Amino acid sequence: MKDFSFYAPTEVVFGRESEEQVAQLVKKYGGTKVLVHYGGESARRSGLLDKVCRLLDEGGVPFEMLGGVVPNPRLTKVKEGIALCREKGIDFILAVGGGSVIDSAKAIAYGVPYEGDVWDFYAGKAQPTVCLPVASVLTIPAAGSEMSEASVVTNDEGEGWTKLGYSNNISRPKFAIMNPERTFTLPAYQTAAGVTDIMMHTMERYFNPDGDMTVTDAIAEALMRTMKSCIFEVLKNPEDYRNRAQIMWAGSLAHNDVTGNRTNGDWATHQIEHELSAMFDVTHGAGLAVVWPSWARYVMKENVSRFVRFAVNVAGVENDFTDPEGTALRGIAAMEQFYHAIGMPTSIHELIGRDVTDEEIEEMARKCTRNQTITQGKFKTLRMADIAEIYRMAR
Amino acid sequence: MKDFSFYAPTEVVFGRESEEQVAQLVKKYGGTKVLVHYGGESARRSGLLDKVCRLLDEGGVPFEMLGGVVPNPRLTKVKEGIALCREKGIDFILAVGGGSVIDSAKAIAYGVPYEGDVWDFYAGKAQPTVCLPVASVLTIPAAGSEMSEASVVTNDEGEGWTKLGYSNNISRPKFAIMNPERTFTLPAYQTAAGVTDIMMHTMERYFNPDGDMTVTDAIAEALMRTMKSCIFEVLKNPEDYRNRAQIMWAGSLAHNDVTGNRTNGDWATHQIEHELSAMFDVTHGAGLAVVWPSWARYVMKENVSRFVRFAVNVAGVENDFTDPEGTALRGIAAMEQFYHAIGMPTSIHELIGRDVTDEEIEEMARKCTRNQTITQGKFKTLRMADIAEIYRMAR
Repeated sequence: MKDFSFYAPTEVVFGRESEEQVAQLVKKYGGTKVLVHYGGESARRSGLLDKVCRLLDEGGVPFEMLGGVVPNPRLTKVKEGIALCREKGIDFILAVGGGSVIDSAKAIAYGVPYEGDVWDFYAGKAQPTVCLPVASVLTIPAAGSEMSEASVVTNDEGEGWTKLGYSNNISRPKFAIMNPERTFTLPAYQTAAGVTDIMMHTMERYFNPDGDMTVTDAIAEALMRTMKSCIFEVLKNPEDYRNRAQIMWAGSLAHNDVTGNRTNGDWATHQIEHELSAMFDVTHGAGLAVVWPSWARYVMKENVSRFVRFAVNVAGVENDFTDPEGTALRGIAAMEQFYHAIGMPTSIHELIGRDVTDEEIEEMARKCTRNQTITQGKFKTLRMADIAEIYRMAR
Repeated sequence: MKDFSFYAPTEVVFGRESEEQVAQLVKKYGGTKVLVHYGGESARRSGLLDKVCRLLDEGGVPFEMLGGVVPNPRLTKVKEGIALCREKGIDFILAVGGGSVIDSAKAIAYGVPYEGDVWDFYAGKAQPTVCLPVASVLTIPAAGSEMSEASVVTNDEGEGWTKLGYSNNISRPKFAIMNPERTFTLPAYQTAAGVTDIMMHTMERYFNPDGDMTVTDAIAEALMRTMKSCIFEVLKNPEDYRNRAQIMWAGSLAHNDVTGNRTNGDWATHQIEHELSAMFDVTHGAGLAVVWPSWARYVMKENVSRFVRFAVNVAGVENDFTDPEGTALRGIAAMEQFYHAIGMPTSIHELIGRDVTDEEIEEMARKCTRNQTITQGKFKTLRMADIAEIYRMAR
């Protein structure tokens, strides 16, 4: 059995009106001048941004604002944030939004005290030892960035964008304010993509080569089964507080290592998807729904019993004890049906609205392996040719 | 749906040889002079205590030692620790042991910087604002104190002992070192009592008056089901690393609020048991096995569907859809059979080896309600007469 560590220090304040505590929490964690970091105008339209600013004002916490973070957040915006923080003497970054905004906030937090190029961390050329404190008022449950040590940034500076992740415990957010009401206005597609992402954070951990942490597996299955039922309730009624709450909290639990240790997980599906969203700028969760079934069929024989367990305990298919592979494959098909039922694509064609070319597949496979210098996946080690085949299966 | 907060900052280092990191972790969290706090001689016999001391020595961390903590840890020992810490300039308390040692360590940590009597905190007369940092090398999975904000101390100073708990986030341990091999030598009775306690920490949260946190309920059920199977494996083979590991990690998860928010839980079974162990000095987990079935039968009609869910999803009985109360009662009976099967008592007579008197029952019920000034339980509010009746049902 693999050893592990668990470290989830983020203070979560969950419920209606939880944002009322924002100024007090910023001060508790040492913030004296705050960058309020956000995405598009939805946070303003909903009144949340104004409310946060009013509460900071009333709490006597000075702040600057920087919006415009886009999905698959960009390095140029990160650098804009770093410059602003230095100019204004910011010592605390408050992300108001979802995973992209929090990821961007973490990158800014690394960059402010660093003399070099912040991309060095993502490119594996340097390790930060300090960063500014980060926290969030969460509006999109999906990425799990609100409690995680991970962030993903897209380098939009050179030719051909590169999307890379970087993980470091020093960037774990100090607090996360989660009010499920703030997710009522999320469109159905974003909601479904979020649930796909949440489930995938747990699936990446569940399909590990070790597979004998029974209590963790049982918890992971419980979380995934719950998501599969909650999503239909919120698609029917977007203002279903109770089910929005389950999804919001599951988004954190799926990525804070309660459902498995990140470093023991597989993560190939994520890496394969990152190239899709870097090339076509698609929604990450939707890309995951496209990639996973092909990944699963490609790697299934590595550990058939694991896929049988998933099929029965999560996908909800009957176990044909005489035919483990058949059960495993029916489980994968059931997940595909689930993705369709919640409005997710399950082919690259559906995802990008046209056929993907052979050249594009080769380029993504090449980038995914950094020109064949690395492999992906721990459940099964994948090289460039394997990854290209998975893209072809998913086309 | 109830709002909640979640705060579990303890860094967990889990696995074989995890204690190798002890000196480095103490220094990381600011310890410069350590109190190594422990219980009886088992920690010395096993070699763990010597190993921890050697590692601190090698890491250049000076330390003092204080052993002799007993189950249901005593206030007099806590005060001995406070005096020692003050005399020696201790700034970090490292508990090597189980819940009693960690609880005692927390009490010492509160007491060192406090000018008054540390019992004030437990008696509800004062609130600490600071405490020394605490951490643990865990040897007994049960209390969950290694990640929790709770501690329970027995006041052995006056006539008639009083056992009271106190919770405060400032005492959350900085780190917890968990090596399942260190639990191989736990006797069967202690192991089973530990699993009973672990499950009860989740059951107290599960039987809450709110009951609509679906994802949390599903996780709680997953944890409890897993414990019910792991315990039989380790009773058969005490050196079963994999199943020892499940129990050890579940002990933390069951009490770090992943399976439900402490403040929304019931906790009557714990309070009713505390009086049993204060009066008869019995093992806490064994006392819980005695109290819970009677508590459950007494309160079941408050929310029959909750007990049906528990019966089917945890106790593993078939659901008779035509007879919810019958299903609920069969679930309670199945738990009693489970307790018996793992060697736990299910009556006070079995627990203390003789009949409990009516006077003793009245005294425990009186103490449990502080002479009728408080009530116990959130699932169903219990007054002195209710509590006495539960003791009688369990006699």
